[in-house]
Amino acid sequence: MTTTTSSPTHLNPAVLQASYAVRGPLATKAEHYRAHIKAKGDNHDLPFKSIVTANIGNPQQAGLDQPPLTFFRQVAALTEYTPLLDDPRAQDLFPADVRARARELLAEVGSTGAYSHSQGVPAIRQHVAEFITARDHLPAELAADPSNIFLTAGASQGVSLILQVLSTKTSGILIPIPQYPLYTATLAALDTNALPYHLNEADDWSMDPQSVEDAIAEAHARDIAPRALVVINPGNPTGSVMQKETMQAVLDICAKYHLVLLADEVYQVNIHDPAKEWVSFASLARKNPTEPKVAIVSFHSISKGVTGECGRRGGYFELLNFPAEVTAQIYKMASVGLCPPVQGQIAVDCLVRPPKPGDESYPLYEKESTTIARALKERTETMVSKLNALPGISCQPSTGALYVYPRLYLPQRAKEEAKKRGQEPDEYYAECLLDETGICVTPGSGFGQREGESHIRLTVLCPGVDEYVGRIEKFHNAFMKKWE
Amino acid sequence: MTTTTSSPTHLNPAVLQASYAVRGPLATKAEHYRAHIKAKGDNHDLPFKSIVTANIGNPQQAGLDQPPLTFFRQVAALTEYTPLLDDPRAQDLFPADVRARARELLAEVGSTGAYSHSQGVPAIRQHVAEFITARDHLPAELAADPSNIFLTAGASQGVSLILQVLSTKTSGILIPIPQYPLYTATLAALDTNALPYHLNEADDWSMDPQSVEDAIAEAHARDIAPRALVVINPGNPTGSVMQKETMQAVLDICAKYHLVLLADEVYQVNIHDPAKEWVSFASLARKNPTEPKVAIVSFHSISKGVTGECGRRGGYFELLNFPAEVTAQIYKMASVGLCPPVQGQIAVDCLVRPPKPGDESYPLYEKESTTIARALKERTETMVSKLNALPGISCQPSTGALYVYPRLYLPQRAKEEAKKRGQEPDEYYAECLLDETGICVTPGSGFGQREGESHIRLTVLCPGVDEYVGRIEKFHNAFMKKWE
Repeated sequence: MTTTTSSPTHLNPAVLQASYAVRGPLATKAEHYRAHIKAKGDNHDLPFKSIVTANIGNPQQAGLDQPPLTFFRQVAALTEYTPLLDDPRAQDLFPADVRARARELLAEVGSTGAYSHSQGVPAIRQHVAEFITARDHLPAELAADPSNIFLTAGASQGVSLILQVLSTKTSGILIPIPQYPLYTATLAALDTNALPYHLNEADDWSMDPQSVEDAIAEAHARDIAPRALVVINPGNPTGSVMQKETMQAVLDICAKYHLVLLADEVYQVNIHDPAKEWVSFASLARKNPTEPKVAIVSFHSISKGVTGECGRRGGYFELLNFPAEVTAQIYKMASVGLCPPVQGQIAVDCLVRPPKPGDESYPLYEKESTTIARALKERTETMVSKLNALPGISCQPSTGALYVYPRLYLPQRAKEEAKKRGQEPDEYYAECLLDETGICVTPGSGFGQREGESHIRLTVLCPGVDEYVGRIEKFHNAFMKKWE
Repeated sequence: MTTTTSSPTHLNPAVLQASYAVRGPLATKAEHYRAHIKAKGDNHDLPFKSIVTANIGNPQQAGLDQPPLTFFRQVAALTEYTPLLDDPRAQDLFPADVRARARELLAEVGSTGAYSHSQGVPAIRQHVAEFITARDHLPAELAADPSNIFLTAGASQGVSLILQVLSTKTSGILIPIPQYPLYTATLAALDTNALPYHLNEADDWSMDPQSVEDAIAEAHARDIAPRALVVINPGNPTGSVMQKETMQAVLDICAKYHLVLLADEVYQVNIHDPAKEWVSFASLARKNPTEPKVAIVSFHSISKGVTGECGRRGGYFELLNFPAEVTAQIYKMASVGLCPPVQGQIAVDCLVRPPKPGDESYPLYEKESTTIARALKERTETMVSKLNALPGISCQPSTGALYVYPRLYLPQRAKEEAKKRGQEPDEYYAECLLDETGICVTPGSGFGQREGESHIRLTVLCPGVDEYVGRIEKFHNAFMKKWE
């Protein structure tokens, strides 16, 4: 077709560089299989009954069907269609606290159809600040400040915004390997430098401060100024929860090298091991300040935890120790996008102010959230133990987040076959897994790993874990045998 | 404060360059005034009773209170809190067609809390394609294709995405002057070249193809390759509706210079003059193809028209005549943001499939949308005529969109005073207007204008137009007198 379109060679070269594995070719192939099964019914010719979507942390999607928390959805319905608040026929349909919350939010928001303040509805930011202050047990003089809270369309949008503001050609952003590919994709599109530091798989994917020091030294040798450090805690894809001592060491490094700390803390509620305590970087930095103080951006989201409201696109970030001139630049860029979705902002309000004991909604809320948390914990433990029982697989315990991230020790002949096909070994493995079992996972090459290593990331969101890990076992044993 | 934060001089220099007038310092000052009035009640010391927000096209915001269309909100409530669909107590609360639509959408979406396809829910894209085909009276062989539709978080996000993909250092994007500052802000942040072409104020802000040719020649002289041409039709801030002949000339220029046409058509429903007919660029390009065919991106939104659902963040763009490799790059970047808000997507479905005659919701929908359209038309005409009656103001008729954009002929001494304060003359005028009357407008310098000119943009969304244009009249006469 001859048209006036820029051919790809005329496009933004930084965009051409970017890649994003979580929604890459395997995910697309899985969608085609799903459509095929839907169209053909029982007459399809695929060697599996259904697609298992284990490639993306999307709890409420079809087939996973994690139920939304009722409180969130009742507040959403009343704020969307406000005549329900006063219609006598609707009086019995909503608990008193839901009705009160909807009225309170509407008084602040006006209409969910109006642009809000670009930084988010002031009252909701106030509630986020109160949530942080309570969560981190902050004394009044260290309380969080709503003017430093930015509501966002999911944490992803916040991360993109901050990376955009901080990036320059001659500086770089330190990122963990493995990492959530939002970081590499966004940095590539910004034409700036991703500076990888390696997590320590053998030690539960812990963060080794020395690996950060090494990455900084390497950047300096290449005349690149490290400007910020990304930490994902709990880890994605690793499931690792950081220890306080390591976190303090990270803060010390940020102080020493004048780094902004980007704390991706969206999985803060997903802790599966009662022995692990999650604490925020901001709370440590507030209570035990370094000299100079570390500037921190802390990201949170409604998409993870037990909420799982990915499709509503809500989240926030808090800026700590940012000078007003930098905050003003961040605000300016936020304002170009006008505002985050108001219904996502309302969900953030529900996240930071859930029903409390005594509220009419509390018993149901408590039951729903406990049920989800228990299922996530049990599935995680089952998956790790079943995967570890397979030959050629070793899987670190996943104590947080929504993923297991096993390492694959693949036969040499399988690696050669992958190379022949122009794929990484774990891409080849993941594609065979999809083709033969209908299970869609994300290959480790999309998250980054050391040369020669292979991993896959599976979410812990799929029900029927015995059945579907059974499919993996069968496939894996046959695969290992075929290529041994 | 000593912290590890990058000082502004360490930030992305392109971000520092960007500016966005619609939510600039005047809007912030207006918010402070509003908060002051709210806090002090009747005891405030400001010389006006209330803030009139005429700076941004945000129909449902407090004080404007354009009601949402009931059909949209009923569908939203049922898709958010699905137990209402089956609860016998809720049977009378929603019309049959609303219930049917909610069930149909839920069958496609699953949960509003799940990430959708990154390009948007396939069934909703199918409905958008059918809407375009019907709106543009396309024969079957020219029908719109859902695989070329991308749902977005408002048109702004779509524009940013497309500009990001098309921008390079050595190329540029042709933009109208005056323009909606999303374009200049985004292009500045992308560190690419905005190539201005001037609209013809004396001829109802029409587009003069020669001015585009001139801008292209100037770009070539600077060794910049023009890559795309932005047209806003109906115009923002101008209110101008393009004639078919001009549109064909634009398409010919795009074909001649191999330009992608970015057609910002978000005000397509806001036509105040029955003699003006709005047609889409894509329909002309389909029915009367040039050689080569012009690649077009057409943007639409739920935020404008009579819908005014800004806060939900919904919209779409259609790609026409784009090769698959370029579409794939656009898809990749869309996928990094995961998906547009699902409730915004649902509102797009309502936009492109409103109730039709015979549906239970139709009479109310028809009444609500007609009432809004009539109010917008009447206010526009009143404002233009009252403004034109003032000395030192001339205002072109605004036949489309949601704005009037009068030119100000300010006294020389007022200009000198502005210069002393480091402001553009129209910025100074707009700030005095806000300080003395509480009316917040956007100065023309934020949209771009010729050296020495002054304009302001006012939305036509404020009720009580006689009273508030009365405030402007009083202020304006005093201002002109003071500085004459």
